[in-house]
Amino acid sequence: MSKSADSYPISKRNRVVRRPMRGHYDKATVHDILDRALVCHIAYVIDGQPYCTPTSFWREGDRLYWHGSSASRMIRNQGQGLPVCLTVTHVDAIVLARCGFNHSVNYRAVMAFGTAHLIDDPAEKLRLMDRFLDRFFPGRAGLMRPPTKQEIKATSFIGMEIEQASAKIRDVGVHDEEADYAVPAWTALLPVRTVLGRIEECPRQMPGVRKPRGMKGYVAGRNLDEVFLDAYRAYENTAG
Amino acid sequence: MSKSADSYPISKRNRVVRRPMRGHYDKATVHDILDRALVCHIAYVIDGQPYCTPTSFWREGDRLYWHGSSASRMIRNQGQGLPVCLTVTHVDAIVLARCGFNHSVNYRAVMAFGTAHLIDDPAEKLRLMDRFLDRFFPGRAGLMRPPTKQEIKATSFIGMEIEQASAKIRDVGVHDEEADYAVPAWTALLPVRTVLGRIEECPRQMPGVRKPRGMKGYVAGRNLDEVFLDAYRAYENTAG
Repeated sequence: MSKSADSYPISKRNRVVRRPMRGHYDKATVHDILDRALVCHIAYVIDGQPYCTPTSFWREGDRLYWHGSSASRMIRNQGQGLPVCLTVTHVDAIVLARCGFNHSVNYRAVMAFGTAHLIDDPAEKLRLMDRFLDRFFPGRAGLMRPPTKQEIKATSFIGMEIEQASAKIRDVGVHDEEADYAVPAWTALLPVRTVLGRIEECPRQMPGVRKPRGMKGYVAGRNLDEVFLDAYRAYENTAG
Repeated sequence: MSKSADSYPISKRNRVVRRPMRGHYDKATVHDILDRALVCHIAYVIDGQPYCTPTSFWREGDRLYWHGSSASRMIRNQGQGLPVCLTVTHVDAIVLARCGFNHSVNYRAVMAFGTAHLIDDPAEKLRLMDRFLDRFFPGRAGLMRPPTKQEIKATSFIGMEIEQASAKIRDVGVHDEEADYAVPAWTALLPVRTVLGRIEECPRQMPGVRKPRGMKGYVAGRNLDEVFLDAYRAYENTAG
């Protein structure tokens, strides 16, 4: 495997085979795509059967974490140490073209490979509960009551060291063969945006309670990937 | 396996274990979630290693189709008849709460299980090329020049009969334990919307070429899942 401190090692498992010019292995690119997301999809195998489960997750250095009910099939199986592939995809545009073949989608995606393991140290589990909140909503853990014994028991955290990862990015516009520009088909790039909608405050908000500073990035109409990246940076700056 | 014509059979593989009240197996619910999406994530296994690959896809009856480069690892392996799990996830909201445990995400997700197989009949492959376009952009295939031999050779289609599927939906707002409503933490539902941005027409648009009727659903600001569902219905109504 080729390797450097700033890039993930490349092997057959994570090498971008098709359109290798779209592939990236440097940590800056991989982490940027991960840190802009709340939801990933995780592939894992139970008795030869692949499963693809969506779940929320976050990154700390070269580790990824997610959580679930202690009773869930995913958690029970992954906790025993399963190989997984955790994938994050941002869809940025639909790209029309003047022939079927050149239609495309603009996207930023990461596939990260590693081995899932259960976090069973009680203190580490409590730390992760706070981190999970603060990473997306800086300062929020400090506003909560402590988790109850039952809540701690019912929640499991899974961690994974990123052994290898690859990013794949397509970010170019309409591209047709020169001869095809004479085809009279309406052609365009259709941008896709994932944004925050209008915030719905809880009808039972305590009197006088205002949106805290840590939530100031959560503004209707904003691109969600930017909100999450900003929150991640705020959390990195304040976390020990 | 329990079974009815209007529902997918349920077994250990697709039964929703955690929060079973969020699980749905009827085809109407499963298909609605699938037909509102362009991109899915597919889990498959090569030599014991799970992969989770994002790709565009579409449904025809109880079959799902996707495509890729004939040279891609995913296509080469899946074409040999691999078990796969194809998952679609729509994120609808982030749900804050007054304790960490009750934070949640609203979503609509489907996990569909089946066996991938390569479509190698040449006529069927040509039909699928047109369907793939028309399903998302009704009438578009008819505006295109025919695919070249090289394009046909370079493109592979994979099909999968849905053997089993489950939908899982969370669509409720802020929910706290009664005692926690006294916790003075700002609490809200943060809706997430995936929408079309401002359409960027190709700078080399042929003079006089206008946006065709089949694309009339593609309007800036519209929820993308509604655009895709409308397009699917238009295609179902016109297709043989």
